[in-house]
Amino acid sequence: MKRIVLPHSDLPDRWYNIVADLPSRPAPYLHPQTLEPLGPEFFAPLLPQALIRQEFSTERWVEIPDRVREIYEIWRPSPLYRADRLERALDTSAKIYYKFEGVSPAGSHKPNTAIAQAYYNKLEGTKRLTTETGAGQWGSALAFAGSVFDLDVTVYMVKSSYHQKPYRRVMMETWGATVFPSPTDRTAAGRAILAEDPDSPGSLAMSISEATEEAAGRDDTKFAPGSVMNYVLMHQTVIGLEAKKQMELAGDYPDVVVACVGGGSNFGGFTYPFLQDRLAGRKPRTRFVAAEPDACPTLTRGKYAYDYPDTARTSPVMLMHTVGNTFMPPPIHAGGLRHHADAPSLCLLADQGHIEARAYSQGDVFTEAVRFARSEGFIIAPESSHALRAAVDEALAARVAGEPRTIVFNLSGVGHFDMGAFDDFLAGKLADYEPPDERIQECLTSLPQVPEPA
Amino acid sequence: MKRIVLPHSDLPDRWYNIVADLPSRPAPYLHPQTLEPLGPEFFAPLLPQALIRQEFSTERWVEIPDRVREIYEIWRPSPLYRADRLERALDTSAKIYYKFEGVSPAGSHKPNTAIAQAYYNKLEGTKRLTTETGAGQWGSALAFAGSVFDLDVTVYMVKSSYHQKPYRRVMMETWGATVFPSPTDRTAAGRAILAEDPDSPGSLAMSISEATEEAAGRDDTKFAPGSVMNYVLMHQTVIGLEAKKQMELAGDYPDVVVACVGGGSNFGGFTYPFLQDRLAGRKPRTRFVAAEPDACPTLTRGKYAYDYPDTARTSPVMLMHTVGNTFMPPPIHAGGLRHHADAPSLCLLADQGHIEARAYSQGDVFTEAVRFARSEGFIIAPESSHALRAAVDEALAARVAGEPRTIVFNLSGVGHFDMGAFDDFLAGKLADYEPPDERIQECLTSLPQVPEPA
Repeated sequence: MKRIVLPHSDLPDRWYNIVADLPSRPAPYLHPQTLEPLGPEFFAPLLPQALIRQEFSTERWVEIPDRVREIYEIWRPSPLYRADRLERALDTSAKIYYKFEGVSPAGSHKPNTAIAQAYYNKLEGTKRLTTETGAGQWGSALAFAGSVFDLDVTVYMVKSSYHQKPYRRVMMETWGATVFPSPTDRTAAGRAILAEDPDSPGSLAMSISEATEEAAGRDDTKFAPGSVMNYVLMHQTVIGLEAKKQMELAGDYPDVVVACVGGGSNFGGFTYPFLQDRLAGRKPRTRFVAAEPDACPTLTRGKYAYDYPDTARTSPVMLMHTVGNTFMPPPIHAGGLRHHADAPSLCLLADQGHIEARAYSQGDVFTEAVRFARSEGFIIAPESSHALRAAVDEALAARVAGEPRTIVFNLSGVGHFDMGAFDDFLAGKLADYEPPDERIQECLTSLPQVPEPA
Repeated sequence: MKRIVLPHSDLPDRWYNIVADLPSRPAPYLHPQTLEPLGPEFFAPLLPQALIRQEFSTERWVEIPDRVREIYEIWRPSPLYRADRLERALDTSAKIYYKFEGVSPAGSHKPNTAIAQAYYNKLEGTKRLTTETGAGQWGSALAFAGSVFDLDVTVYMVKSSYHQKPYRRVMMETWGATVFPSPTDRTAAGRAILAEDPDSPGSLAMSISEATEEAAGRDDTKFAPGSVMNYVLMHQTVIGLEAKKQMELAGDYPDVVVACVGGGSNFGGFTYPFLQDRLAGRKPRTRFVAAEPDACPTLTRGKYAYDYPDTARTSPVMLMHTVGNTFMPPPIHAGGLRHHADAPSLCLLADQGHIEARAYSQGDVFTEAVRFARSEGFIIAPESSHALRAAVDEALAARVAGEPRTIVFNLSGVGHFDMGAFDDFLAGKLADYEPPDERIQECLTSLPQVPEPA
């Protein structure tokens, strides 16, 4: 059987919170002004209480509300595939599986947390949600979730993407959201950026600043982040929890678990349920591979240090792998991977050697995306193609070593809104954007001056 | 349970051929030059023998080859949904279900026959396939199927769509197909059209002429049509066969079965397995509704008469509902519904009162597509939105009548490549294109002069 489908009754009823199992206590978040450790109250203007509790929770399992599971059922459990035709194309001794999150209404994994966040907000009386989006996958997911729970959604979309990807904007508007090209003159953060550079193309860090500023300033409005936060990664663990069951049905357990990393929600959501087995010593030899763009190389070339998640420096300072909050990621097509730093739990695990990281160029990943379309059939997103590329590398290495290897990766979304990128690739017009060392060093001078962890 | 998913073991193992159950013998196809009845040998230059046999078959059931079922398993069985949130939005006493074909790699129902056609061609040694495509759904599906079976695919894409929808072209190229804007100067048919009108925007009928001419002229090349032919409709019956099982699981049987009509493959594929029950007298009161665009009103305003399916008049003359082979369908966004005539079996059933037809404007259908996105979540194709609109009309009529009504429609594909249309709709810029009576009458003068059926 090529497609492994779980019955409705196997939809997970709880999320997995890896914080309970981390090998060491996570570093505290620091207040952006005082750089002192901060508590839950910091988030009160931005997030509903239920999500603040989840952010600071150390419980291993958190129940998924029935109403959230009911919406998940529109597309979940999602299928897991054996990539047998890709295996033949690679002539590999490895077995390759992929989990497919492209079946959601928004075409990616993002609704897994968008639905949960919209639900908790609705429950606590929120009327409006603000958020940031780069290529538009997160904004689309939140627009969809807003339509489900009848919440107004305002999206600050990175200006360069807003103009490059008008169809993502239309998708959000179809679900009823309002979309602004960021930086805007609607917020102090946006105005400050525009004063310095009226032609600023925007960045995720800038969009976050605008979205959080608007949420903090209005009683009926909260902020809904698409990645990085603990609870966002936790909501995404439905992916890995299902995948574990599906691998069990296939009679297999992975030697290598692969996902791409932007902020870390796709990576955490897919790998953490497997990582739990490694951390508990049950599967000590299973490896975890994070695939990132060489244009924004946080894990492979960044520093493990405290940094701000946003440009305006009003969000909590977190211990992360970062290339610096002033780093302006080049305009690669994998817009969802253009973030200067990653989720704290992911960085802690990478720092302690539980996660390996690899960086790929656009050409690397599109070559594999086209081979995948012509073997497995699906046209996948540039973000997901990073994971695919790492999985293919593992399969080719297994062939060279002449050994079996069971590889599973997360195919986080379809590429239907990225056909311009495929067009450029097929025409040989994809640019490479590897940043020079000096640029990264320069951006790392923007880190806050706090003591590094022991 | 909102989403009704069949296990892998419920994938149909045979197609349903309605020709065996038609209430009267279908009219013969006529030779395009002599207008005399033609036999299977006419198709030999264009189609593999297996498909010619299927075209003339009167067997009720045709076995689906294992290799075809294996590829179907990438996305089949597809889900059937209870549209409970749409029902609430409509405040209706009706129950609405929809079958969802948007889960295929090409995002529509079209691969159901593309895979089968590519398989039979491969088996008989075909190296290249040619085809026509309008908005690109069929071309995409055949490009995908060609990549599966390692066949070269050449697509004649209606020129206006080629320029309006470049991403569809890129999708086909990603799967390895070659795409030309039709009319081209590669064929005599194309050159004749260009000689008369160098700026011709093209039409499906013109593209068919070019694709069949190229296939007829090359030994290694066959033609793969996306609709109208009996065997194409038959391959699509996997949709309706699954849907019947899913309705059974839901403990329901439809009072109304709805699908949109372009050439008829989506309509036939979805409704015929249900129609079998009506024709056999088991479910005499179940109604069948065909939804078409008012811009190309074949069933609602066309004539039931013999006509050519293509502009060059080299394809077999068939008895169909037609608005005339010289009718140039206006540039509506539902490109898949821009065909001047429909499948013979469908027209026979409509003529004999087994199928009702309704025509809708673009505004009518996009209003419902947006309501659907905001209630059920999926952003669907303009073609499918015609079926949705007819289903909604039935649900509202049930409310007015204060009666229960079980409605099921086929959601044939996603609208990810139609966001420009949603943008126009949301901006209030959708044009209406209802053709005047005189225009249709004028086009009907192009019909061949053959005796009408008794």
